[in-house]
Amino acid sequence: MSKKNAFYAQSGGVTAVINASACGVIETARKNRDRIGKVYAGRNGIIGALTEDLIDTSKESARTIAALRYTPGGAFGSARYKLQGLDQNRAEYERLIEVFRAHDIGYFFYNGGGDSADTCYKVSQVSQKMGFPVQVIHIPKTVDNDLPITDTSPGFGSVAKYIAVSTREAALDVASMAKTSTKVFVLEVMGRHAGWIAAAGGLAGQGRNEAPHIILFPEIPFNKRAFLKRVRQCVRDNEYCVVVVSEGARHRDGTFLADAGTTDAFGHKQLGGVAQVVAQMVRDELGFKNHYAIADYLQRSARHIASATDVEHAYAVGRAAVEMALAGENSIMLTIVRKSDQPYRWSIGKAPLSRVANKEKIMPLRFITSDGFGITAACRRYLAPLIVGEDYPPYRDGLPVYVSLKNVSVPKKLKLKSVIA
Amino acid sequence: MSKKNAFYAQSGGVTAVINASACGVIETARKNRDRIGKVYAGRNGIIGALTEDLIDTSKESARTIAALRYTPGGAFGSARYKLQGLDQNRAEYERLIEVFRAHDIGYFFYNGGGDSADTCYKVSQVSQKMGFPVQVIHIPKTVDNDLPITDTSPGFGSVAKYIAVSTREAALDVASMAKTSTKVFVLEVMGRHAGWIAAAGGLAGQGRNEAPHIILFPEIPFNKRAFLKRVRQCVRDNEYCVVVVSEGARHRDGTFLADAGTTDAFGHKQLGGVAQVVAQMVRDELGFKNHYAIADYLQRSARHIASATDVEHAYAVGRAAVEMALAGENSIMLTIVRKSDQPYRWSIGKAPLSRVANKEKIMPLRFITSDGFGITAACRRYLAPLIVGEDYPPYRDGLPVYVSLKNVSVPKKLKLKSVIA
Repeated sequence: MSKKNAFYAQSGGVTAVINASACGVIETARKNRDRIGKVYAGRNGIIGALTEDLIDTSKESARTIAALRYTPGGAFGSARYKLQGLDQNRAEYERLIEVFRAHDIGYFFYNGGGDSADTCYKVSQVSQKMGFPVQVIHIPKTVDNDLPITDTSPGFGSVAKYIAVSTREAALDVASMAKTSTKVFVLEVMGRHAGWIAAAGGLAGQGRNEAPHIILFPEIPFNKRAFLKRVRQCVRDNEYCVVVVSEGARHRDGTFLADAGTTDAFGHKQLGGVAQVVAQMVRDELGFKNHYAIADYLQRSARHIASATDVEHAYAVGRAAVEMALAGENSIMLTIVRKSDQPYRWSIGKAPLSRVANKEKIMPLRFITSDGFGITAACRRYLAPLIVGEDYPPYRDGLPVYVSLKNVSVPKKLKLKSVIA
Repeated sequence: MSKKNAFYAQSGGVTAVINASACGVIETARKNRDRIGKVYAGRNGIIGALTEDLIDTSKESARTIAALRYTPGGAFGSARYKLQGLDQNRAEYERLIEVFRAHDIGYFFYNGGGDSADTCYKVSQVSQKMGFPVQVIHIPKTVDNDLPITDTSPGFGSVAKYIAVSTREAALDVASMAKTSTKVFVLEVMGRHAGWIAAAGGLAGQGRNEAPHIILFPEIPFNKRAFLKRVRQCVRDNEYCVVVVSEGARHRDGTFLADAGTTDAFGHKQLGGVAQVVAQMVRDELGFKNHYAIADYLQRSARHIASATDVEHAYAVGRAAVEMALAGENSIMLTIVRKSDQPYRWSIGKAPLSRVANKEKIMPLRFITSDGFGITAACRRYLAPLIVGEDYPPYRDGLPVYVSLKNVSVPKKLKLKSVIA
């Protein structure tokens, strides 16, 4: 039996450590040259496969590949592109298999979140039916931490650390100035559907009287009266108040706080970050001077303050993807299995894709304090190990040295064919 | 002659390294116990002096004081409080001298920006006239880098590093996703009057085709047409575009792109939200998907990624304040004197307060490219050394361990007297 090549692609929003998973895949494949051929990467994720736009990772030096471990972003390009259902656009799946067949690809490593797990599952099914079996392994990645079964997803730990560190630092700033200046500081963080990232802000302090004093979760319907009361009380007790708000914070009726429904002079709908909405509410209703920050992409690209634990997770799932593929596994997502909180011990596990696809892991309500504004001890026990350890990139002239790949194209073998919906 | 005590206070917006200056002052004073008494700190800056609310720093251990070197924020509290003119409220100055006399204070170390230099100058004049001579030393601090004479101001280098690093990281994120998602990313940075911080974003890349592709400076009137043309061109050439915009970016008529309409205690306009204005413009006029981040306080409190050069500057001006005071200096601001760009060499100098007060250092136009959207080689030569070196704080459980002071009050000796305007 001839050696099969592997296909690797990044999917969805990138993270500070998704390239560490790529590094794990490629380095492990190179260690198994006797059993695995080349690793081809999709240029711009799955779109690269659909358009036969493949990158030959064998053209990159060992040193360059090693540097992926500490380079944020998606080195081969990622894509927000969800394959449709099999019934809607079977041609997409067939095209994938066609490309895989043309390039002798026997392993499909897909590095992404919930949507990509779904894609993996369908590719796995189609490849069976088309008589060109490809081993499909889903490598988990999402800053949102919302993949099921796995204890956590690579990418989350580093965002969590960034938000916890930033909250602690900004709180010291605000505390210093509160007497005569800003009293309320609002930090907007990602997490449209689940409050995992907002919860991580809670690690910055220990309980009610330490910043962040208030966390606004998507899981808890926003109660304006209770919120303003708590802010007032907090400023009275501590002279200042730090609020971490999830972009997904919403009203009782399910509409986002960020969707303020305001329009500008030209009738354009105002984009309005939720931080601004909350800050303005504090100013208008309580009269406190306030400031707000919107971390946006900074939080998920901040490799300079990545969690060492997260980096290890990310590399490990990349490595395990290759190892498990070589061991004959198929149609699985790799998982992080927690064995103990303290000392933190973990291993790599697996879950059948059928159990993963289209499921979301929501924050359990027992992780949120009964007043809805903080995290519980159970939540801390869960989150704390995920941000442990610093894994600094190398620096030159004061800036992190991140790698740029050559990204040499693999010669095309097929006719151009548009299957993208 | 008996040993005099010293008074130290922090003023205005705090930074990631202002406590490093406090550390320099206190450690150096402790090394000169034979000549200098206690160091009293103003609780909440100059307000602590006006209200006789002094902190006895001698109650803090050597270890705690040493930890100030890596703790962001203002450890004794800072204040946005500008003393009025001598004619308007002479009582304020007289009260200061009264407090200094009561506590046998012979040295006034004031750690702040332009406004505090002005205060220092007036205190120095009044103390002479009142026959209670106090040696006044201004210790420079401002993230805005707008103090005159000094080559740079402690606080700026660390913000510059944070913005350069964050821009580089976020750019990698956006570049990965541009094919199917966000094409334009806007990062809003501080710098109301001068574009120093925005310019620092320029260090993230090398020239036109590397991020940031566009910088919007307060110094260059905003030209909407030229801006949109450049964004379109940039997306066409690079598939994405990263914009760093100063909060002080303004129209040709001088009005800010973002004008929140509110003012602070100094009568300064409170800004915020220029990123949103720019992002919305890009969306409405060009239709590109975009994201924006507002670094706000995160940028000036980010001690976790402070510039080692900046930390050294900050400590050095603190130390020099005490040394120069003991050498008989009075009514001066300490300065950073650049001796060479590469290798970077510097020393501590001094400037008479009369030459410092109420002057602002604006970015020279030769630091901005002729198209108004980038930084020149001369600007790079100036900025580059200021962000060199990492000076990581210690970590425990994944979070930086910042120190909290006891901040024990000095018993009051005077009757309460309100002089605050």
